[in-house]
Amino acid sequence: MTRVIVALGERSYDVVIEEGALDRASAHLAPFARDGRLIVVSDETVWATQGVRLTRGLGAIEAVPILVAPGEASKSWDTLAHVVDRLIALGIERRDHVVAFGGGVIGDLAGFAASIVNRGCGFVQIPTSLLAQVDSSVGGKTAINVPAGKNLVGAFHQPAFVLIDPNVLATLDPRQLRAGYAEIVKYALIQDAGFFAWLEENGASLLARNPGALHHAIATSVAGKARIVAEDERETAGKRALLNLGHTFGHALEAETGFSDRLLHGEAVAAGIVLAFDFSAHKGLCPAGDAERVRAHLAAVGLPTDIRDLGTGGRRLVGQMMHDKKKEGGRLPFILARGIGRAFLDRKVDLDEVEAFLDRRT
Amino acid sequence: MTRVIVALGERSYDVVIEEGALDRASAHLAPFARDGRLIVVSDETVWATQGVRLTRGLGAIEAVPILVAPGEASKSWDTLAHVVDRLIALGIERRDHVVAFGGGVIGDLAGFAASIVNRGCGFVQIPTSLLAQVDSSVGGKTAINVPAGKNLVGAFHQPAFVLIDPNVLATLDPRQLRAGYAEIVKYALIQDAGFFAWLEENGASLLARNPGALHHAIATSVAGKARIVAEDERETAGKRALLNLGHTFGHALEAETGFSDRLLHGEAVAAGIVLAFDFSAHKGLCPAGDAERVRAHLAAVGLPTDIRDLGTGGRRLVGQMMHDKKKEGGRLPFILARGIGRAFLDRKVDLDEVEAFLDRRT
Repeated sequence: MTRVIVALGERSYDVVIEEGALDRASAHLAPFARDGRLIVVSDETVWATQGVRLTRGLGAIEAVPILVAPGEASKSWDTLAHVVDRLIALGIERRDHVVAFGGGVIGDLAGFAASIVNRGCGFVQIPTSLLAQVDSSVGGKTAINVPAGKNLVGAFHQPAFVLIDPNVLATLDPRQLRAGYAEIVKYALIQDAGFFAWLEENGASLLARNPGALHHAIATSVAGKARIVAEDERETAGKRALLNLGHTFGHALEAETGFSDRLLHGEAVAAGIVLAFDFSAHKGLCPAGDAERVRAHLAAVGLPTDIRDLGTGGRRLVGQMMHDKKKEGGRLPFILARGIGRAFLDRKVDLDEVEAFLDRRT
Repeated sequence: MTRVIVALGERSYDVVIEEGALDRASAHLAPFARDGRLIVVSDETVWATQGVRLTRGLGAIEAVPILVAPGEASKSWDTLAHVVDRLIALGIERRDHVVAFGGGVIGDLAGFAASIVNRGCGFVQIPTSLLAQVDSSVGGKTAINVPAGKNLVGAFHQPAFVLIDPNVLATLDPRQLRAGYAEIVKYALIQDAGFFAWLEENGASLLARNPGALHHAIATSVAGKARIVAEDERETAGKRALLNLGHTFGHALEAETGFSDRLLHGEAVAAGIVLAFDFSAHKGLCPAGDAERVRAHLAAVGLPTDIRDLGTGGRRLVGQMMHDKKKEGGRLPFILARGIGRAFLDRKVDLDEVEAFLDRRT
């Protein structure tokens, strides 16, 4: 069992990574139940496949589920209003804690609902995808999508506890597992060259679901994210922005493919990471050999590293980037790299240069 | 000109009360404009009657209005989504400030929209009703209504600045002016017996819109609220709850009259204040003479103090109270009084006793 503390003063919380944690959910979650009851927001697929383990693990604590349809479409005003109405009907109080049990969509949706019902109640994350375990369940970003773009409406609302059981990954689709792996590689590339070398050695084993490799990679990623979030909770100091490595390029790729199954978020991040390193190398900021190592590793595990077959171009991708909610005074901050483990924020990237660079790769 | 500071650390802000402030809006609001532009959320009535003064006062700063229908019905998911979509379409950024220009509905709606667009941007309050000037524009409570009840969905999101121009009250409907006055009386009754004596002397003059009386009462009320909010921003320490004096009874009365024009919020608060003092006197906590002084003053200015003609009863009113979002462990906190200027929080009120008390008054 590994316990990581996200140090945010009075909003501090623990992230516990423990194989079989779901089977001992009662011990972990008892502090968050009221009158022997916990409200659990989940999606129909997760609940059908993992709900029994959670309810058994909760023992005498009754789990009252609020279920939504699986998939990104549930991050909508309508589903948000539905979850909020159900929470109110179930008598939610400010001091109560809602459990978000699912992947990134459920964490984002349930966390946002918790942040606004009664002007805010508590919530607990039990992430069930690798991507949610290593990334979205930690750090307090919650959101829904609107027609103008993804995650444009939401709140910074920290969970009170995050419970990660790597055993739930046993049944996760291999493509989803790889997509989550891209975010693990991201942490290594931001600030931990030693971890990247470890991933080069152990990535295949991890993706074969070796328990030791999974545990180490999840714990290292969560600890890396916790450090960054503790330094810059609301992304105002230039530090948390590092977590967007690969995301500005990747988000534009997702938008160009309609946020569809054609390119999963983690896959877009992988391709985006390659672009960020190549662009850094192209500008002479990063050794070409480092960019090549990044591409080689992501390709070796089966993640997309080439965007030529997406049928897009530099102008279209830069156009997508201009909708980014992180733009400041019309400029877009980019995460570039001086090498593996040495990402940095550049607020002064010339978008014409980005466009020309992308034109040669699309 | 009076400047009140709401002391909340890095979220501190000024409230400026100044006759004619709208005509000098440019000087006050320049720090919040970007590229010579300010986005202003308002309702169609306020914009039609006061919009010209604001746009003239802004001079070279362009006001880009987002208008919604006047009235409580605009505190809805649909109108919230509309405002958010417009903010995004107008290119809102996290560091930008939205101006809420209107009464309590606009402040609550625009403030909530600002709290969630891009996971939060800034906002400025320019309240145009007496109730919004003395109460809802200060303290950071924002919300919309849902079918289950009023203000059940929202956020604590502090404005960056509040600009109060008492001159806009010149055209306010006398009944709305009286309703706002009830909240002024509330501040006096919570913690300032001297202010209540001043109101007994000067209430009629204030309601006749004597500028000096209005300024003094607004400034005293805002300073009173600022002190309480600074001590207990998120209503967790038992202090901010004092601002609910008259509101638990009043809210039940509003619910029973369908939140309609039959009983305005401020009128319900007035009747609720009388009930809170009578109940306190009935329990032997408060001198009967103080309760009588409270009733006499509210009646003298034309506010409702008798609920016999509402056609409701103790059981129905207590039933309405059980939906209150402030209930804890199924119990409801009440604000009672030991006398004028001596309100206190009682978490252990017996609801059967409340019901029996109300039955004798309905």
